[in-house]
Amino acid sequence: MQIQELGSIETPLILTNTLSVGNAFSACVKYMVQRNPGIGRTECSVNPVILECNDGFLNDTQALAVKDEHVFFALENAGEDFKLGAVGAGRGMSCYWLKGGIGSASRVFERNGEKYTLGALVMTNFGTLCDLTICGERVGARLAGEPEEAKGSCIMIIATDAPLSSRQLTRVTHRAQSGLARTGAVTEGESGEVVVAFTTANRMKMYEPVWDHKILNDNQLEPVFRAATECVEEAIIRSMLEAETVTGFAGHTRTALKELI
Amino acid sequence: MQIQELGSIETPLILTNTLSVGNAFSACVKYMVQRNPGIGRTECSVNPVILECNDGFLNDTQALAVKDEHVFFALENAGEDFKLGAVGAGRGMSCYWLKGGIGSASRVFERNGEKYTLGALVMTNFGTLCDLTICGERVGARLAGEPEEAKGSCIMIIATDAPLSSRQLTRVTHRAQSGLARTGAVTEGESGEVVVAFTTANRMKMYEPVWDHKILNDNQLEPVFRAATECVEEAIIRSMLEAETVTGFAGHTRTALKELI
Amino acid sequence: MQIQELGSIETPLILTNTLSVGNAFSACVKYMVQRNPGIGRTECSVNPVILECNDGFLNDTQALAVKDEHVFFALENAGEDFKLGAVGAGRGMSCYWLKGGIGSASRVFERNGEKYTLGALVMTNFGTLCDLTICGERVGARLAGEPEEAKGSCIMIIATDAPLSSRQLTRVTHRAQSGLARTGAVTEGESGEVVVAFTTANRMKMYEPVWDHKILNDNQLEPVFRAATECVEEAIIRSMLEAETVTGFAGHTRTALKELI
Amino acid sequence: MQIQELGSIETPLILTNTLSVGNAFSACVKYMVQRNPGIGRTECSVNPVILECNDGFLNDTQALAVKDEHVFFALENAGEDFKLGAVGAGRGMSCYWLKGGIGSASRVFERNGEKYTLGALVMTNFGTLCDLTICGERVGARLAGEPEEAKGSCIMIIATDAPLSSRQLTRVTHRAQSGLARTGAVTEGESGEVVVAFTTANRMKMYEPVWDHKILNDNQLEPVFRAATECVEEAIIRSMLEAETVTGFAGHTRTALKELI
Repeated sequence: MQIQELGSIETPLILTNTLSVGNAFSACVKYMVQRNPGIGRTECSVNPVILECNDGFLNDTQALAVKDEHVFFALENAGEDFKLGAVGAGRGMSCYWLKGGIGSASRVFERNGEKYTLGALVMTNFGTLCDLTICGERVGARLAGEPEEAKGSCIMIIATDAPLSSRQLTRVTHRAQSGLARTGAVTEGESGEVVVAFTTANRMKMYEPVWDHKILNDNQLEPVFRAATECVEEAIIRSMLEAETVTGFAGHTRTALKELI
Repeated sequence: MQIQELGSIETPLILTNTLSVGNAFSACVKYMVQRNPGIGRTECSVNPVILECNDGFLNDTQALAVKDEHVFFALENAGEDFKLGAVGAGRGMSCYWLKGGIGSASRVFERNGEKYTLGALVMTNFGTLCDLTICGERVGARLAGEPEEAKGSCIMIIATDAPLSSRQLTRVTHRAQSGLARTGAVTEGESGEVVVAFTTANRMKMYEPVWDHKILNDNQLEPVFRAATECVEEAIIRSMLEAETVTGFAGHTRTALKELI
Repeated sequence: MQIQELGSIETPLILTNTLSVGNAFSACVKYMVQRNPGIGRTECSVNPVILECNDGFLNDTQALAVKDEHVFFALENAGEDFKLGAVGAGRGMSCYWLKGGIGSASRVFERNGEKYTLGALVMTNFGTLCDLTICGERVGARLAGEPEEAKGSCIMIIATDAPLSSRQLTRVTHRAQSGLARTGAVTEGESGEVVVAFTTANRMKMYEPVWDHKILNDNQLEPVFRAATECVEEAIIRSMLEAETVTGFAGHTRTALKELI
Repeated sequence: MQIQELGSIETPLILTNTLSVGNAFSACVKYMVQRNPGIGRTECSVNPVILECNDGFLNDTQALAVKDEHVFFALENAGEDFKLGAVGAGRGMSCYWLKGGIGSASRVFERNGEKYTLGALVMTNFGTLCDLTICGERVGARLAGEPEEAKGSCIMIIATDAPLSSRQLTRVTHRAQSGLARTGAVTEGESGEVVVAFTTANRMKMYEPVWDHKILNDNQLEPVFRAATECVEEAIIRSMLEAETVTGFAGHTRTALKELI
């Protein structure tokens, strides 16, 4: 609700499992206060953005295993190179009854002589095997035994340097579901998808009273929507292709897609 | 939905009664085509914005009395001077069981050395007499006999030259209800309120691919919200104070507030 | 906004082109008044639901060609047998740069020993040929010459007899976009999709103060979502397969898909 | 987003300050797991609802002072008797530049021979003194020196035993702002209001596939809306009347309203 209302993101985005949201939130607060000691005292407060999926099949979520040091480590080592697949918050996630996790993809496109980039990062934790579709091919139907019910959710983060307004970014979030659908997702009995879209083009400067924003004409958005749809589709499939088989809580196992194809 | 999705208003805003929306829409299309003969042929289409309340107590809405010529007349004579009270689409409206209609009010405020104006125009068609509150005084409770149930709706249009984004304008629309509430409205058993807010500062130029927009920092919006709240409150009361008693369909009468105080 | 706020649909749903919304609205009012002479007089008013796409390529929308008699004819002849493809409001629609129009599909599914039906009816007016995907196969990429930009919109109506609440129906509407995406839609530079979902199970009885509603547990909705996704996908493809080539305004032509495959 | 999407509340609602959301979340998880050891293992997960305001003026929010034991104590001692004013999460809150905190009010109303109750509980942390309005009287303007800018937010929880649907409860939440506006709130430069409305009438039974819900006809909701508006107004004023003066972080003080009138 915060992002919708204020239109800004004030902290790094943190991905975790459902029950660890509290620990991740507190750790993020501590991290932010370390770097901005005036928070909540001489300056305004801060609103962490924590995104979660329920990885209760592979992970004992009751353990609340995410501690401050894990969050600090992640934040201090965040950079352009990062691992995909069964890593980080993605370690416990399941996708199409196989191993899911963290995926990413990006596109560069040109518009009016300007080059723009759009990237997606997803945490995949949804679906039933028989629905899995890769590049239009219903791969899952071949691999599946008994059909199971689709469940779960997917976190989709879309970042771009194209100059968009909040309203246009909301339109972009709606296209993320198209990418999801292309991988076969019915979507879902149990919970909704969460999509966050932001631009680095129109930064809000906390202490300036008026902002100069460049904004694309709405009739220029087709390549943005196309890139968002394609990146989410590709990122989801990559989250599976990059993942290895994981055996976790109570001996539960999710097999890697790469072992099946 | 159109305004929310595309963030633009392409035609004059037209107020009418519920069942006349169709005629008003068609007339607006004809008016726009006269002035832009390429609409829907060589240029893109147009999406009229028609706003309505149900004035079925004073008006025989089945008559579909609004014709092209009424809409043309209104559009051709629109200007800075306009009548308030029981005029135009406001002729049949009832407010707090008295005569309602068209009201307006505006504020000028300064922010960072710039002067901005915000104005509200309302069409009032809601409420039950015992709730009517003017400047905090429960005038209606004194005037009311038997309490009746509140019903109806209110159209509230807020225009400003302050440079706001779509997201911020949506925040402004939420404050219109505060102005409504200050006049005593419980709001309402039967239908929702409709609020349209727009700025003249950040015009969308249909044929330019990138727009330069100035946008106020969200921490500068307090005077905008204050003006929106005050203007809507004042405009509602003025719609009643400016109205005269009207007797209409089936001999139904709504008494003017000014005859009671 | 009406449906969101009141949760009810009071008239037949009418499909037409953008500029004919006004005429369709007025005709619908007349039709309703004929059958319920108390509307707006002794009874409450009525809120027509008119859904539109812009068919300006094949149709001269300025002609406002839809008249009362066309709407009456459609309403009086509505029934279980109806034509698909380039008929009715679908006559002028374009889909993936080929001929679009009206499509429909349905599914029967069982849940807890009860059989439920869900059907979709779509009016297709969007897309660019290179994106067209049928059953996962990128048919359009083979057929397309120069890529063009995707534009347009799609009306999707989903009806079911499964007992759902308004909140659940809103969740169903979100799945319609998944069906759309499966046909290849990037969706879309210019305008949003419109989805209406309703159930015939929980009818609102205007003169009863309390309603007994049966509602499915949210954990039972997977087959509903699956049916909605599949029906929308199939209905879109059928709108194209059933359509014939149409040449219209200014000699513009849209070719039938069936002539190409 | 959870409540909007799933329509259910799975845990007690916890109020705290902005930066303590994480600790409150983790404590709530532990409390729920204690009582339902299958959570996230043999049963589904749980989604705590934590509501917050920024009390950084009176409270050193960096201290993250809310610990498990405080949340457990609050949950274990929750009951029909509870304190109002500067207590609990309300201890650090400021309202109209005076001392705010926790307030509550309720109404009983009859509809179709049934008695229903609606109650509001608020946490008040907004406003500037010159706006404070009590029963229509602009008390604040008399008490205020230099005008300051309105800031902050207000948590409003509305509970009823009237049988409402999710859609109708959303309509009820919109009326909470009317109650807020009647106390003079402009609302607000910095952050949005949060309103949660729920009914105890239509409980969701996690393991039953179909629910029988009773739902009021929308034309019966006027007394519900009236009660919601009045309760929120009264609860806000009571949060101030019940509070005592508090001096907190850095010697900052908020004076009790009761010391001024």
